[in-house]
Amino acid sequence: MYPQILQHILKDIELTPEEQDEFLSILLEKQLEKKTLLIKPGETVNVEYYVVSGCLKAYYLNESGDKHIIQFAVEDWWISDFEAFFNGQPAQLYVEAIEESVLLGIHKDSLETLYKRIPKFERFFRLKTTGAFVALRSRILSSLQKTGKERYLEFCETYPKIEQRVPNYHIANYLGLKPESLSRIRKELN
Amino acid sequence: MYPQILQHILKDIELTPEEQDEFLSILLEKQLEKKTLLIKPGETVNVEYYVVSGCLKAYYLNESGDKHIIQFAVEDWWISDFEAFFNGQPAQLYVEAIEESVLLGIHKDSLETLYKRIPKFERFFRLKTTGAFVALRSRILSSLQKTGKERYLEFCETYPKIEQRVPNYHIANYLGLKPESLSRIRKELN
Repeated sequence: MYPQILQHILKDIELTPEEQDEFLSILLEKQLEKKTLLIKPGETVNVEYYVVSGCLKAYYLNESGDKHIIQFAVEDWWISDFEAFFNGQPAQLYVEAIEESVLLGIHKDSLETLYKRIPKFERFFRLKTTGAFVALRSRILSSLQKTGKERYLEFCETYPKIEQRVPNYHIANYLGLKPESLSRIRKELN
Repeated sequence: MYPQILQHILKDIELTPEEQDEFLSILLEKQLEKKTLLIKPGETVNVEYYVVSGCLKAYYLNESGDKHIIQFAVEDWWISDFEAFFNGQPAQLYVEAIEESVLLGIHKDSLETLYKRIPKFERFFRLKTTGAFVALRSRILSSLQKTGKERYLEFCETYPKIEQRVPNYHIANYLGLKPESLSRIRKELN
C-alpha cells in the first residue's frame, strides 16, 4: 500500500511482514492542495509527517511579519513543528504545502505504542533524529564560516530535489541571503 | 562506581543490575585540567562524553580567528563534536575544559555493541538526541524572535548551573551579544 515509506524504513532496520503491516496500519494519509497550511502557530501538534510526494516549507513569522524558512521537505523527508510535537507546547511554526502533497502522518500516541510493541523503531527514529540534529548543527556552522556561494552549493547537495521546484526567494530566505545575491550566485555558477 | 550516570540513565529507561554493570564496564574515565583541549579540529572523534563534574565549552574558530561558542556542558550533560562523532568526518570544533572536569566517555564501537546487547539504550539515546535537536531548533527560533534580555533569561533557565561559573564574555558570545550589552542586561535585572 505504501511501498515508499517501507523502503525508507527498511534502509535502517529489518522488519518481518507482520511488523510491516502493523506499522502501515497506524499511518494516516493526508492530501494537501498547494498553499494549504498543515500546521499553524498556537495549535497542538500530535502528528509528524512523512512526505510521499510534493514539497512543503516550515517557517516562522516574527512580530514585524518577517518570514524565516526553517526547513523544506520533499519526498522521503519528515516534517512537523518538532518542538511542539516532542514537548507538547503550542506550535510556533507554519507548515505549508508549496506543491500539492501527499503525506503519511504518525500520531504521537501510536508512536509510543509502536515503540513498545516493536522496539526496533526506537533505533529507526534515533537514527533519523541524529541525522536531523547533525544537519542542524552543520547548518549553524555553515552560517558562521561559509560564503553565500558555498552555502548555496551545500543546499543543492542536501536538497537536490528542491532546487528546481522552489522559487528563488524561498531558497534565499532559507539561506539568509538577499534574493538578488542568490540570483547573482546562480548566474556565476551557470 | 558511577552512581551519577546511572541515575541519569535510569530516569529514562529501566536496567537490571547486570545491564547496569555491563553499561558501566564500557565507560572510559577522563580527567581534564582547566583550559585543556578535549577535541581539536581535524581530529577523528570516536568518543562522546558525559560530564560527571566540571564545565566545558564547544566552539568554532573561523578563518579570521572569531570564536563562536556552540555549546556549554556541565554535570549531567553530554558533549562531543557530534557531527564528527556521528558522521565520521574530521572534527570542526574545539572542545575545552573551562574548569577542571571529570568525564565518562563512550567509544562509538562500544555504543554499537551496547545497542545490540541492550536495545533499551536505543530509546535512551533517542530521547537524549531528540532533546538536543529540539533545544537547537528552539535556540534558532529564539535568535529570530527574542530580545537579548529574553535570550539571557532563557539561557539562565536552560543552564542554571552555568550562569555563575562562566565569564560574562563567554555567555555573551554564546548568545550572540556584545559583552557590554550583556553587562547592561544583567544590571537591569538585578
